Amino acid sequence: MKAFSALALAAVLASAALPAAAQFAKPEDAIKYRQSALSVMGTHFGRLGAMANGKMAFDAKLAQESAEIVALMSKLPWAGFGAGTEGGKAKPEVWQEQAKFNDLAGKAEAEAAKLTAAAKSGNLDSLKTAFGPAANSCKSCHDSFRKR
Amino acid sequence: MKAFSALALAAVLASAALPAAAQFAKPEDAIKYRQSALSVMGTHFGRLGAMANGKMAFDAKLAQESAEIVALMSKLPWAGFGAGTEGGKAKPEVWQEQAKFNDLAGKAEAEAAKLTAAAKSGNLDSLKTAFGPAANSCKSCHDSFRKR
Repeated sequence: MKAFSALALAAVLASAALPAAAQFAKPEDAIKYRQSALSVMGTHFGRLGAMANGKMAFDAKLAQESAEIVALMSKLPWAGFGAGTEGGKAKPEVWQEQAKFNDLAGKAEAEAAKLTAAAKSGNLDSLKTAFGPAANSCKSCHDSFRKR
Repeated sequence: MKAFSALALAAVLASAALPAAAQFAKPEDAIKYRQSALSVMGTHFGRLGAMANGKMAFDAKLAQESAEIVALMSKLPWAGFGAGTEGGKAKPEVWQEQAKFNDLAGKAEAEAAKLTAAAKSGNLDSLKTAFGPAANSCKSCHDSFRKR
């Protein structure tokens, strides 16, 4: 992927929260959508983790691309958790504790944005510094809202 | 504990991730990745189609967002079709006719880029004009390389 495309998309998405209503014909579509977006995010997040933890050679360009994909993907899944879309790995608490869920989703987006900034620096230490809080953000949402 | 949790997650993610050359630790990971990227693309492509075909009210901002997501996603799946990742809905021809597959993948990316440009114009007629060739590009690759 080209970095500039991701940047352009980031700008567009940053300025607009997608309306959650009526975006999916069937609940299964919403579930598949959120799982797919989270899966793509997880793949690229895993690569950043591998670099941050020395399991994979640090490649500044690959890190930046992966971080930008993570940042963009971090904005998408939440539209797939609308009313009536219970199921998949999501706990009922997603719909019972929406304020908390939305707060953690927002924090995940913010950490992903910081991770992108760190990856853009081209500095492995910056990536390492940003990776932990981002991973923690994923984990705290999963602990509360994802079935084991 | 939080820091420890983040490190634990990081370790899990790192061990699940790749050697530098191969991008996926296991063939199933590659299959899930390409399916997820194509699924996210399909959701947003479907919205553009609904607008282009009058099944959904045209919303210039939503069209641009969706087109940009389509354009970004169109670059991702192909890395998930590496050697040894046969399976899912992919026909064996993906690996037997790589030149053709790569050609169609490249055309899909090009059509997605045109679609983004059309969506950015904010003009429904431009979107309609760009949508048909883009849909045909998806279809011609699916006809040859995706199992029914």
